[in-house]
Amino acid sequence: LVTQMMFGRDVTIAVQDPTFPGYVDNGVIMGQTGPAAVDEESGGSRYAGIEYMRCAPENAFFPDLSRVRRTDVIFFCSPNNPTGHAASRDQLRQLVDFARRNGSIVVFDSAYASYVSGDDKPRSIYEVPGAREVAIEISSFSKFAGFTGVRLGWAVVPDELLYADGTRVARDFDRVVTTCFNGASSVAQAGGLACLATEEGRAAVARVVAGYKENARVLVDTFQALGKEVYGGDDSPYVWVRLFPGRRSWDVFAEILEKTHVITVPGSGFGPGGEGFVRVSAFNSRDRVVEACARLTSFLA
Amino acid sequence: LVTQMMFGRDVTIAVQDPTFPGYVDNGVIMGQTGPAAVDEESGGSRYAGIEYMRCAPENAFFPDLSRVRRTDVIFFCSPNNPTGHAASRDQLRQLVDFARRNGSIVVFDSAYASYVSGDDKPRSIYEVPGAREVAIEISSFSKFAGFTGVRLGWAVVPDELLYADGTRVARDFDRVVTTCFNGASSVAQAGGLACLATEEGRAAVARVVAGYKENARVLVDTFQALGKEVYGGDDSPYVWVRLFPGRRSWDVFAEILEKTHVITVPGSGFGPGGEGFVRVSAFNSRDRVVEACARLTSFLA
Repeated sequence: LVTQMMFGRDVTIAVQDPTFPGYVDNGVIMGQTGPAAVDEESGGSRYAGIEYMRCAPENAFFPDLSRVRRTDVIFFCSPNNPTGHAASRDQLRQLVDFARRNGSIVVFDSAYASYVSGDDKPRSIYEVPGAREVAIEISSFSKFAGFTGVRLGWAVVPDELLYADGTRVARDFDRVVTTCFNGASSVAQAGGLACLATEEGRAAVARVVAGYKENARVLVDTFQALGKEVYGGDDSPYVWVRLFPGRRSWDVFAEILEKTHVITVPGSGFGPGGEGFVRVSAFNSRDRVVEACARLTSFLA
Repeated sequence: LVTQMMFGRDVTIAVQDPTFPGYVDNGVIMGQTGPAAVDEESGGSRYAGIEYMRCAPENAFFPDLSRVRRTDVIFFCSPNNPTGHAASRDQLRQLVDFARRNGSIVVFDSAYASYVSGDDKPRSIYEVPGAREVAIEISSFSKFAGFTGVRLGWAVVPDELLYADGTRVARDFDRVVTTCFNGASSVAQAGGLACLATEEGRAAVARVVAGYKENARVLVDTFQALGKEVYGGDDSPYVWVRLFPGRRSWDVFAEILEKTHVITVPGSGFGPGGEGFVRVSAFNSRDRVVEACARLTSFLA
C-alpha cells in the first residue's frame, strides 16, 4: 500500500498472472487502472491498463518478457503466491535486465523467501547484479514467523534507486511512510525483534517454516499419488494443482468444499491465468493436513 | 489515511487553521491540493486548493462559516489539536447544518474526547441531530489510553451517510479498509479490549486522562500567573499560549529550547493561523511538567 501511495494514480503496472490479488486491488483503488472486463478465455476479469504477465506451467511459471508491454512498475512475487514457484537466478536476472532497459521499478515481494530450498533460487532480488538500481523489496513476518494478524513487515528501498530526474525514490518512500503510516505497532516490532535477534527466536521461526514445508510435502505427495498435475510446495507453503482438466476453478472449489469440507482457493481468484487450478495451503496443523489429504484421496481416487 | 484513500484525488478539502497537520499532509500526498505558497500574513505555507478555516481567539476558535467556501470534505478536530478548544454544542450544530446544506462530508476527529469537561461540549459529533447523514467520526486509543506507538483507532461510518448518487459511503469504506489495511494488529486490539471491556481497564484509562488533565491545569496556571494569553487545557492535554505578542512561533520555540531545554511546538507548524503561538503538551510525568513550569517561570518572569 505504501508503495502504491508513493507511486500515485498516474503509473502503469504489471503483475504476474496468476498473482496475489493485493497488487491489483490496491492499484484499482488508487485509480491506476481502467474498468474491469471479462476475460474471454478464462471467464475471469481483467482490468484495463494492467499488464498481466502469464506465469504458467507452459513457460516454467516465468513470463515471456519479449511479449510484455513496458510499465512503470512491475509487481513480482517469488516464491509466488499462488503457484508456489520460486524463480531461478536466471529468470530473475532476465527480470532485472528487462526493468533496467525499460526504466521500470520492480516491487519484489519476498514474503515466502524462507521457504526456498537449495541455493539456485535467490531469496532476495538483491542477489541479482544491478537490482539495487531498479528494485524495491517488500516482505512480511506473516509467513515466516506466523505473524498473521500481528501486522509486521519491511521494505528495502535502495539509495541507488532513482527516478528519471535523478532524485531518490527512498526520499519519497520515507515521506509517505512517516506521514501516512507512522510505523508498525511497537508491540509487533518487539515481537519481530525477538524472532530475529535471539537464538531462541530464530530456532522457533525455523521450526515453524520447516513444519509448514513438511505439510506442503504431504499435500504434494497426496496429489502425485493420485496422478494429478501438481506444482509448488518445494519452495512455498502453497500447492497449485489442476484436479479436473477442463473444469472451472470455482466449480472444483465448490465441489471439494461440499463433498469433503476442505477449503481450497479457486485459482481464477488470482487472475485469469489461474483458471483451472486450485491453491491448497499448508498453513494448518499436521493432523488437519493429514485429515484433509485423507478426505481428498477418498473423493479423488 | 483510509478516509483519504477512499475519497481519492478529486475531492476538495477544508481544514481548521490551525490544525493537526496530518489531514493536510495526507491530502497533499493523495494529490488533492495544488502547490504550496507562502502566506503573506504569517510567513507559513498554504496549499492551493485547501480551504483554511481560521479558528482563533477572535472567533471563539470556530470558523465564520458564512465566509467558508464549500468543499467535498471538512476535517474538524474537537477538542482541537493544537488549540485545545472543545467546540460547543451550538458550534457543532452550525457545522453539521453547513455540511448538510452543502452536501459535504465532515470527518470529525474525536481523539481527545475523553478530555472534555462538563456536559455542554459534545464528545461525539453524533450528539448533534442530523450528523449521521453527513459525518464520519474517527478516533484513537493514543490519547485516551496512552497507546501512542501501539497503533489502534476506530472509525464510525453511519449507514445513513450517502454519496450524491445514493450509494452508501460505508460500503466503500469497508472495501478500502479490508483491501488496503486489513485491520490493526491483533495484539493492539486485545489491548484495546482490555481498556474498554474490563472494570480495571476503564479505571486505569480514567486515571491516565485525569493525570494528564491535572498536568494541563499546572501548565495553564503557570502561564496565567505570568500574565500570558493562554487557551486550552480544560478539555484537552494541550495548552496554546502566546508568550511574546508580535514574535514568530519558530523564534519563540527556539529561544525556549535554548534557554530552558523545554520543548514546545511552534504554532505555525499547524498552519498559518497558528503563527504567534506555541503548543505546550501535558503528556509527561507530573515531576517533569512541574520542572518545566519552574524553568519557564524563571525564563519568562
